[in-house]
Amino acid sequence: MIHCWFVYGIGPLGQGIANAVGLALAERHLAARFNKPDNEIVDHYTYVILGDGCQMEGISNEVCSIAGHWGLGKLIAFYDDNHISIDGDTEIAFTEDVSTRFEGLGWHTIWVKNGNTGYDDIRAAIKEAKAVTDKPTLIKVTTTIGYGSPNKANSYSVHGSALGAKEVDATRQNLGWPYEPFHVPEDVKSHWSRHIPHGAALEEAWNAKFAEYERKYAEEAAELKSIITGELPAGWVEALPKYTPESPADATRNLSQQCLNALAKVIPGFLGGSADLASSNMTLLKMFGDFQKATPEERNLRFGVREHGMGGICNGIALHCPGLIPYCATFFVFTDYMRAAIRISALCEAGVIYVMTHDSIGLGEDGPTHQPIEHLISFRAMPNILMLRPADGNETAGAYKVAVLNRKRPSILALSRQKLPQLAGTSVEGVEKGGYIISDNSSGNKPDLILSATGSELEIAAKAGDELRKEGKTVRVVSLVSWELFEEQSADYKESVFPSAVTARVSIEAGSTLGWEKYNGSKGKAIGIDRFGASAPAGRIYKEFGLTVENVIATAKAL
Amino acid sequence: MIHCWFVYGIGPLGQGIANAVGLALAERHLAARFNKPDNEIVDHYTYVILGDGCQMEGISNEVCSIAGHWGLGKLIAFYDDNHISIDGDTEIAFTEDVSTRFEGLGWHTIWVKNGNTGYDDIRAAIKEAKAVTDKPTLIKVTTTIGYGSPNKANSYSVHGSALGAKEVDATRQNLGWPYEPFHVPEDVKSHWSRHIPHGAALEEAWNAKFAEYERKYAEEAAELKSIITGELPAGWVEALPKYTPESPADATRNLSQQCLNALAKVIPGFLGGSADLASSNMTLLKMFGDFQKATPEERNLRFGVREHGMGGICNGIALHCPGLIPYCATFFVFTDYMRAAIRISALCEAGVIYVMTHDSIGLGEDGPTHQPIEHLISFRAMPNILMLRPADGNETAGAYKVAVLNRKRPSILALSRQKLPQLAGTSVEGVEKGGYIISDNSSGNKPDLILSATGSELEIAAKAGDELRKEGKTVRVVSLVSWELFEEQSADYKESVFPSAVTARVSIEAGSTLGWEKYNGSKGKAIGIDRFGASAPAGRIYKEFGLTVENVIATAKAL
Repeated sequence: MIHCWFVYGIGPLGQGIANAVGLALAERHLAARFNKPDNEIVDHYTYVILGDGCQMEGISNEVCSIAGHWGLGKLIAFYDDNHISIDGDTEIAFTEDVSTRFEGLGWHTIWVKNGNTGYDDIRAAIKEAKAVTDKPTLIKVTTTIGYGSPNKANSYSVHGSALGAKEVDATRQNLGWPYEPFHVPEDVKSHWSRHIPHGAALEEAWNAKFAEYERKYAEEAAELKSIITGELPAGWVEALPKYTPESPADATRNLSQQCLNALAKVIPGFLGGSADLASSNMTLLKMFGDFQKATPEERNLRFGVREHGMGGICNGIALHCPGLIPYCATFFVFTDYMRAAIRISALCEAGVIYVMTHDSIGLGEDGPTHQPIEHLISFRAMPNILMLRPADGNETAGAYKVAVLNRKRPSILALSRQKLPQLAGTSVEGVEKGGYIISDNSSGNKPDLILSATGSELEIAAKAGDELRKEGKTVRVVSLVSWELFEEQSADYKESVFPSAVTARVSIEAGSTLGWEKYNGSKGKAIGIDRFGASAPAGRIYKEFGLTVENVIATAKAL
Repeated sequence: MIHCWFVYGIGPLGQGIANAVGLALAERHLAARFNKPDNEIVDHYTYVILGDGCQMEGISNEVCSIAGHWGLGKLIAFYDDNHISIDGDTEIAFTEDVSTRFEGLGWHTIWVKNGNTGYDDIRAAIKEAKAVTDKPTLIKVTTTIGYGSPNKANSYSVHGSALGAKEVDATRQNLGWPYEPFHVPEDVKSHWSRHIPHGAALEEAWNAKFAEYERKYAEEAAELKSIITGELPAGWVEALPKYTPESPADATRNLSQQCLNALAKVIPGFLGGSADLASSNMTLLKMFGDFQKATPEERNLRFGVREHGMGGICNGIALHCPGLIPYCATFFVFTDYMRAAIRISALCEAGVIYVMTHDSIGLGEDGPTHQPIEHLISFRAMPNILMLRPADGNETAGAYKVAVLNRKRPSILALSRQKLPQLAGTSVEGVEKGGYIISDNSSGNKPDLILSATGSELEIAAKAGDELRKEGKTVRVVSLVSWELFEEQSADYKESVFPSAVTARVSIEAGSTLGWEKYNGSKGKAIGIDRFGASAPAGRIYKEFGLTVENVIATAKAL
């Protein structure tokens, strides 16, 4: 178990403070669930440094607003107020009063005016921050960038570049540092080395405390241990709901809620929520209340309309403990608001589950601003992430099985707003392969035609297949629920699904056709949408855009 | 000329306030450039309404921070403080003190406590806001959502759904509204109709004012007129720089700066800037200073590290007048931060020019957080936007010609950090076709091999072509600088570039290979990168990832 988190935001700006809010949330949640009056087994601070650039990014305001709302008292942020960014003095673009803003956000604020050498002031500020337990604290630390460099300090030239040999010499002289490069003087070494025995003692004490906790609170200890180690409880997969073609038709967003609720019952570290769309994304965990200031033991997270911050916070939760499995939700089109955080999930191997509903023009009247077109392909092309678009109940359960098992690879589930039937031939095992045959009346791996689809259009492909078979054709219908998983299968398996000899292929998907050439080949045809959508009920708009059984049949016949 | 802008943010939240900041910036800039002591020809307010959802989105904080910095005194924002969002009372996720935050951002703030019926208070607030000329004003107007509905007012059920017939009846009764649906009583009609003659008189007065302005200030009037109408000055295309294969090698970001500076000299409404990366994106207009509170007549915009807000502000500028042509810049990977605003450009037909440098792993040491992989394909799939990746000087000039001409379609230019040679065969005309042959030693439209590439990899394809020709092959090298433009060409033209009989095809592009099947066909091969990049100098990393002449040759031979 970690004693304290220290996050430094660098690179994609503002992500660090978002991660820190997630880490502090995780601590607060676990402490509320597991601490006992005689044994506070979870108890650490989260420290984060953020610079002027982080402060300018909108994501940092989003997460600091919700951190203030949640009252994350053990979150301590140091704002490195050096008033220099890449383009020069922040005077040119950033003159707001940051501390006043943070007061508005419900934070405690402290200002250390001499951050270059005012060590005692910094120590006092940390002490003060710790004493404020109901609010996060921002310690604004005014510093000089490149402190010590006689010619480059306080200028943008030390922001992104090395000092250079000459200026390094001048800085050494200026700071009175006579040592060779990489030489650590004995007194410095011994000063810092204090932390080794100190850290070891802390670890030992914590281990003893946990042993005591295990003795007295065996059940809670087992649960906490599974969260710390990430070991999933035996039999969790069986908790996922099962469906037959006779099960009632339903939107995959509703089927997703059945899975979320099933998983939260059996996986202790499963928690999450939506960016103000819980009732549309269908993400509420019915057996739990809201994670709030007064009820941090609960597992429904209310992120507000803060998609980008939500993603960054979930990265922090996922990285806190391997057994914390956060999910977060909005409309699929609004992945555009949080794409930078999703990419960090992929890059940091944080297994966040992105529950993205209203996944096509099938969402209807909200119109083009809410209708994703290019989003599926845009995530299929993103490295180390799984884009899953299940077609019905069994595929939704399969998508969740995959998502939970992929702890080092985030998953995005694209889910329908509209009702879909439970299809014959779909399966959890099929989803695990990414692409598979749901029906086929051919033999010898040589159908006349292959119809491929994902999600809500698999029904259309299945029906078109049935019609064409009635006319005497041999037709294979393939679900391509996750291209990434399919590409990982053996060449033999891929050939068994898409035999190279069969060039008559049609795909249907309510999104950009780009990329489908991969599975349709040069002679096949993709049915999809390469323009913005329109506002109309799902049935009407599908007809207008040619996402119909008739069009699939006509297209197949015209090949 | 517009007298006043009124923006209401709906749909993608926070975009409306960002557009409003752009509109207010445009007014301030044009007023500073064109107003005379005796004729203030540009003089209007920008009003915007934003709700709780807009306030939670990070983009709104970004743009309100920079609006405060710029001191946009004629921007008046009404914050509809109805404390309800889709998931219920804002108490569950949004309890910050918005007015205090805005004071921190340098705004003047006013609170109208009774927004339901306090009309005089609202009038007084607007008057007060207008009196504060050096700061934008936030008028927090506390209202009841669904005011008048006896059973649904003040609840989330009126946020996204209609009242329903029964509650409409109850509301009519409650408000004492006895009329039939869609009936407008005579007194209401005449009250509102006042605005028709009032508006006509204002227009007439402005036209007379402009006629006077034209008489006295002919030169300025012509310039302002071209900004208002969007008519480009004759001969502007000739201002673009021209290159020969003998011109020095250079990064396309530097060639881009030559184009930006050339265009700003001849196009009066050309202005823009970067999100704190002007010196890396190479976007400074050398003949102009910074647009700042005291110098609003200048044309270099300093957006700070606020990519998302930058995009939304540029949409506002572009939509203010057809002749205002805004460009904005960051690293290509950080389009992830601003994707929602870019999509609004496409949806609103706002011809913003996105100058996106550091467009591949070729950027080197900054590593995977800064290296785009999936970004090219993700924008190629976005409707109504042009993704352009020029290879050298002539292609960069061509990309700018296309971008300036496309006033209803935004353009993204992906530009290299690293030096690239000026290639033989590239041309502005070629870019306008999106894809074209830069060299070919075959006859009868039947080369042995077609090599395709974009941007920095076109050099590699050209060199590989030369090598293979030495070995006796006939090789065609194609630049696919913009897939969208190429797809708009005639079938004959496309066949003349990619004859269907030629199936031996290899593409090379430093990004995701997904989508290249479209041009390579089932038998061709794509060389690219389908994983995250790495931190190393450009030459080293290209070698490690197989983006080399040797690999192109080997791949072609193995087809």
